[in-house]
Amino acid sequence: MVDSKQIVDGFKSIQDEICSGLESLDGKGVFREDNWDRSGGGGGRTRVIREGNFLEKGGVNFSYVHGELTDLMRREMGMKGEKWLATGVSIVLHPISPMVPIIHMNIRYFELDDGREWWFGGGVDLTPHYIDVEMTKKFHNGVKSICDSFTNTAYDTYKKWADDYFYLSHRDETRGVGGIFFDHLNENTGKNKDEIFEFVCNVGRNFVPLYKEQVEATRNKGYGELEKQWQLIRRGRYVEFNLVWDRGTKFGLVSNGRTESILMSLPITAGWEYQFDPSDDPEAQKTLSLLKRDINWVDFDCESEGT
Amino acid sequence: MVDSKQIVDGFKSIQDEICSGLESLDGKGVFREDNWDRSGGGGGRTRVIREGNFLEKGGVNFSYVHGELTDLMRREMGMKGEKWLATGVSIVLHPISPMVPIIHMNIRYFELDDGREWWFGGGVDLTPHYIDVEMTKKFHNGVKSICDSFTNTAYDTYKKWADDYFYLSHRDETRGVGGIFFDHLNENTGKNKDEIFEFVCNVGRNFVPLYKEQVEATRNKGYGELEKQWQLIRRGRYVEFNLVWDRGTKFGLVSNGRTESILMSLPITAGWEYQFDPSDDPEAQKTLSLLKRDINWVDFDCESEGT
Repeated sequence: MVDSKQIVDGFKSIQDEICSGLESLDGKGVFREDNWDRSGGGGGRTRVIREGNFLEKGGVNFSYVHGELTDLMRREMGMKGEKWLATGVSIVLHPISPMVPIIHMNIRYFELDDGREWWFGGGVDLTPHYIDVEMTKKFHNGVKSICDSFTNTAYDTYKKWADDYFYLSHRDETRGVGGIFFDHLNENTGKNKDEIFEFVCNVGRNFVPLYKEQVEATRNKGYGELEKQWQLIRRGRYVEFNLVWDRGTKFGLVSNGRTESILMSLPITAGWEYQFDPSDDPEAQKTLSLLKRDINWVDFDCESEGT
Repeated sequence: MVDSKQIVDGFKSIQDEICSGLESLDGKGVFREDNWDRSGGGGGRTRVIREGNFLEKGGVNFSYVHGELTDLMRREMGMKGEKWLATGVSIVLHPISPMVPIIHMNIRYFELDDGREWWFGGGVDLTPHYIDVEMTKKFHNGVKSICDSFTNTAYDTYKKWADDYFYLSHRDETRGVGGIFFDHLNENTGKNKDEIFEFVCNVGRNFVPLYKEQVEATRNKGYGELEKQWQLIRRGRYVEFNLVWDRGTKFGLVSNGRTESILMSLPITAGWEYQFDPSDDPEAQKTLSLLKRDINWVDFDCESEGT
């Protein structure tokens, strides 16, 4: 069975693959790497891209950190034990154009007390500023085929989990069109550690092709001030989700993580307008109507949409 | 002794006074009022100002809300009992100019189970984008004189409380230069309910004069792109504090509060740059060096500053 060293190596390779894939896709932006050590144990490779052809700001982070459980972690995260170890790859990409979706991907492995407990987690989800139902259907079908190679219930289960996780209850809005989210995967899945690791790696290796399909369909679309204003508002919602509800961000901040790496997920700019009114932007209104949980995107009837 | 009805009326008057005081100070912006009801019980008067002469976005909110304790409130806020009631006035003002400080003020009253338990809370704190030590000293001396009319230990206690509360541990930075923060004030202060209410109202009534002194000293200062960029970064920090650490915001969001009123505290725009480097802005660097807890601002030696 795979051990934490092999998982670390696998995750590092995935980070490398994704960074070179994204650099080719962008055609201009180049990742800047910061290697860092964590005083409590471990470290990481933070890679940030800025001012690319279509990528405005993005991060592809690898980290491997470990330490002793603190009272804050026990209280805020409900963890039990003495020692913890976490490794993962985490990505958020913010495009320049409001027509290109924001995307997030994460794969992670967590261990308590040298493997007494272990689990994998991760997911990939898409946040279009403007929802295009055909592209969303393609995204969900792509994600489903990755899941289907793991178990035949994975997509349905993890899709629902994403709907519930990437949800801003204070807005009654989903963050975007979802995707998949999973956590605490261990033998309770009916799969062994190697098989779960392989699934998690598949999510990582399919990230660039999944996003490429979205980017190529949208990067040449035109837009103006109206769309840029809406993008600021949507980015504000993204910030709200990440800072208020995201457990990964919270874990990082309370476990004395590297703040600049954790918050690389935030956009270069975001905006908040009291009771923003998109009444002059029908596409924005349509988007709001689709930021809902439990939409069957895989079989979505794109023809009847909007009728 | 004052009852919740009288407290509600007192807080409403303070909201009125503050709004008219701010409109005069601004000279152009006018508050727009939204009256709202909360489905679980109570409601409020949200007042928002936009695009004034110096105020870019601000809110002066009054609310009076009540309901049954939910599991989420018990878990997230550590509250005990069946019923709760909360009323307060809450203010955040974001100026256009990076040379004018952001300010926050809040006064509140909370009751559990029809007064079985009650307490007051509140505070006022200043967040200059650029710290001017003389103006900060003036602010703290103004706040101290309000506190001194309550008890002779209030300023020291509540100033330290503000330092500890308005602190971004993930940045090791205070939000701004602090001020005062207090919570759970009841007979344990050695004062009775009427006396505590009077103190809290004094904080509210002195808000406009305190801010006016700051605004008049800074509103005509010049600035350029460098300062606007720094303002975006500081506003990003403000967003981080409010969404990650502020208990008031969290209480509002988890108690099914009115999101648009709670998040009126957020600026019209904010920004995040990976490892932002202010090396070309000595005043920004000086500001960072002063975003620390436990600075004695009341007796600050402005002459020796920076030497």
